[in-house]
Parts: sequence; structure tokens; C-alpha cells
Amino acid sequence: MMDPIGAKTWVVPGGRIPFPSHGDEPEFTGFDQLCVLNTGDRPAELELTVYYEDQDPVGPYPLTVPPRRIRHVRLNDLVDPEAIRLTRPYGAVLTGAVPVVVQFQRQDTRLPGTIALTDVIAHPAG
Amino acid sequence: MMDPIGAKTWVVPGGRIPFPSHGDEPEFTGFDQLCVLNTGDRPAELELTVYYEDQDPVGPYPLTVPPRRIRHVRLNDLVDPEAIRLTRPYGAVLTGAVPVVVQFQRQDTRLPGTIALTDVIAHPAG
Amino acid sequence: MMDPIGAKTWVVPGGRIPFPSHGDEPEFTGFDQLCVLNTGDRPAELELTVYYEDQDPVGPYPLTVPPRRIRHVRLNDLVDPEAIRLTRPYGAVLTGAVPVVVQFQRQDTRLPGTIALTDVIAHPAG
Amino acid sequence: MMDPIGAKTWVVPGGRIPFPSHGDEPEFTGFDQLCVLNTGDRPAELELTVYYEDQDPVGPYPLTVPPRRIRHVRLNDLVDPEAIRLTRPYGAVLTGAVPVVVQFQRQDTRLPGTIALTDVIAHPAG
Repeated sequence: MMDPIGAKTWVVPGGRIPFPSHGDEPEFTGFDQLCVLNTGDRPAELELTVYYEDQDPVGPYPLTVPPRRIRHVRLNDLVDPEAIRLTRPYGAVLTGAVPVVVQFQRQDTRLPGTIALTDVIAHPAG
Repeated sequence: MMDPIGAKTWVVPGGRIPFPSHGDEPEFTGFDQLCVLNTGDRPAELELTVYYEDQDPVGPYPLTVPPRRIRHVRLNDLVDPEAIRLTRPYGAVLTGAVPVVVQFQRQDTRLPGTIALTDVIAHPAG
Repeated sequence: MMDPIGAKTWVVPGGRIPFPSHGDEPEFTGFDQLCVLNTGDRPAELELTVYYEDQDPVGPYPLTVPPRRIRHVRLNDLVDPEAIRLTRPYGAVLTGAVPVVVQFQRQDTRLPGTIALTDVIAHPAG
Repeated sequence: MMDPIGAKTWVVPGGRIPFPSHGDEPEFTGFDQLCVLNTGDRPAELELTVYYEDQDPVGPYPLTVPPRRIRHVRLNDLVDPEAIRLTRPYGAVLTGAVPVVVQFQRQDTRLPGTIALTDVIAHPAG
């Protein structure tokens, strides 16, 4: 139907999972999230690498998006090779062999009774 | 006057219409919205395809933007071929024969007395 | 010092000045704002055109940014050739002869005691 | 491991550090922040220049990001050659000899009991 569209490498420098959270889980749990769209006919086998201020990068975290599907993945839920510590600054690079498009979202409920949202299209690089 | 500017295909991976809403309708109803600007002299006949995590894409949803006009369309309001279920994760691809520019906005009023907004320029692809 | 950087045309499809506002003016007045950076040695003489859903575009609104300066302009404050009506959907195209960079920001204080912010880099087009 | 990715110059036209702040410091202090990711094998020696509405640009502010590391830098914390005055509109250009990726974030706690966040990928320029 549709040709695969997007880029093979995507970058988000500004990660930091909010903590604590207020409100019902999981709907109001604070999160950082990657949203990936694969319009192509082949599965997108992606690798996520997490960069820090004070140690070598950690990864790869494997992430698969089937053909003609999206995946919305909370960074909070990644545990292998290791969890990303809450409130720790990080950056993320997502890379694979087929083009996809990547959006990064944060939900912040650190204060009771209020939600803050923010959103970027990740930086496409090659 | 002005040449048509932008791209013919635009991508938003991170859709999810917030629910429930608080406050007066329609001003404070939660929404996901596509904002399209057609600077050209010809109508932009666009097709929206909606991608999901667990089923084949749905569409096309037809969307027309007259010459030298904008349209702000709430995804909540699309019903043909089928409505997008509230709180369900999705991605969107908007494509047509003439260049346009596309912005994606969310208004979240899930908590009483507070509004969260977020905004991206969609990813241009060809 | 620095070469002029950026693009000569910038596009924002998703304008809508929030109303009403709550809190002290002008600090908490709701606004849509264009932020322009001119790194070059020549003044940037820009023209803003405003697009609507249901009438021909309005403009040009003249806007000058001196060499090596920024300007943050609230759309609410533009009156010549005519004011942009509050809560009316619009799109904006900013164009000139020298490269600049343009960011679009919204501050929404429609609900008392809460602020929503959102932000995009405008779409660069040529 | 990974080639250096990104661009050598990044632009943010819409700076303005929020003031006052409410809530515990430093977690809820209002800020403007630059998030830089250097995926390459060489240190990124960056120079930040700050542009204003009514005076010549100030800088360079030096900023180093080691190989395969991120840095999240609050603009509030920069003091040499001079601090950026709170609530004063500014723009920022970050430039260096190796490619990096730059995101700009704002946390606004001017109203007690509420947080507003906003986020852009800076504009890449060469």
C-alpha cells in the first residue's frame, strides 16, 4: 500500500522520567514515551541506546514494530538490559534497518491535581 | 500570490484522544487535532490513514482544504469509515497531491480545573 | 560575526489566540507568539500573512528584526491591517529576504490558577 | 560504536526564563534548559551565543559535552560572561565543530500548585 516513510535513526536528547506521580495508575502515572510508526511492509527491528551524563551508554534495548503498525512504549517499562532510573537525565537514540517515524512524549503528574504534557518529533538523522 | 509550500505527506506517530473531559463543551473537551495550511491555488484533497498497535490501518478518511485556507480538524470528529476510539493509541499519515503544512495539537482536560496542551509540527515525508 | 542562519519562509498552521485570560496582565494574559531570531548583519524585513478557514488571507503584517537581534511578537498585538479575532482558528506564514529562525508559542490561562504552554519550531520552507 | 549524528549549529529563538517559581528547589524551580547529546568519539566543545531584543549578542558561553554523553544545562545557571536576566526575552545559538543534537525545554511554576512544560527540538542549521 504505502512505501515505508521516515528515517532510520532518531534522536531525543532531553529524557527524564518524572517522579513521583499522583492519580490513578497507569492512566496518570508520569512517563517518558516513544511513539513509533512503521508504515512499511517489513517489521522494524529497532535498537534503543540510552546515553547518560556520567557513564557509558546502555543498550541495545530491542524494540519491534510490526508492518503497518504503531507502538507507544513508555521508557519506564524498559528493564532489559537495565531500567532507566526515575528523574535521571538521559538521551535516547533509536535506530534500525527500515524507515520509521518517532515522536517523544512526557506526562508529568508530580503535583497532585495537575497534568503537564510535552511532545516533540524526535530528530531524524539518516 | 504565494507558491504552494510544504510537503505532500505528513506523519504523527503519537495519537491518543484524551478521555474523560471536564469543563464546558466544546471549548474544554479533550481533543487531538490536525491543523492544515494550504497556501496554494488548488484545493488540497487529502487522505488520512490511521495506524494502530493491533490491527490493520483504517482509512482513507477524506479531508479537503480549499486554496489559501486552513482547516483545524479534531480527530474526535472523524466517523467515516469509523470513529477513533477514545484513549486508544494510534498514529496518523496525511497525504495528498499538493503541498501543505500540518501541525498536531492535543488538549487534555482529564483532571477538573486544569488544562494540558501539547503541540508538534508533523514529520514531513516527501 | 555569524552568517545569517535559518530559512526565508516559515509556516505555522495551528494558530488560535486563547480567550478569556486569568491572572495579572500582561504576564498571565493568554497569547500566541512568534519568536524570530536574525543572526545576520542586515535587518530582516518580514511579512506575515494570516490564513483563515472561511475567508481570503489577510496581510501583509510588516515585522522588522534588526541585525543580530530577536523579536518576540504576540499575535494579539497585531492590528494593522486588522486584528486577529480571539479564539478564531488561523494559520501564519512569515517570509522575508534574509534567513531567520522562527518559533511559535502559546500561553493559555483560560482556567483560573493554571497555565498551559505549548511550543513548536515553525516549519521552514525555502 | 556510533558515528556522530546531528548538526553543528542549533538555534532556539524563543527563550525566556520563568520567574517567580513555586515549590521545592531545585526540582520545581522554573527553568529554560538545553539538552545536548553527543554520540561521537570526540568531545563536543560548544559555544553558546545569546541574542536579545535591544543589545548586542552576549557570549560565547563555553559548554563541553564528553564523547557518548548527554548534558542538560539550565540557562539559569550560566553566569560567565554574564547571567541571563529572568523573564527577559532572548534567543540562543549553540555551535561547535562536531555534530550533536539539541532539545530545548521549559518548566514554568509561576503559579503555585501547577506546572507547565514545553519542549522543542532546536532548529538544526548546517
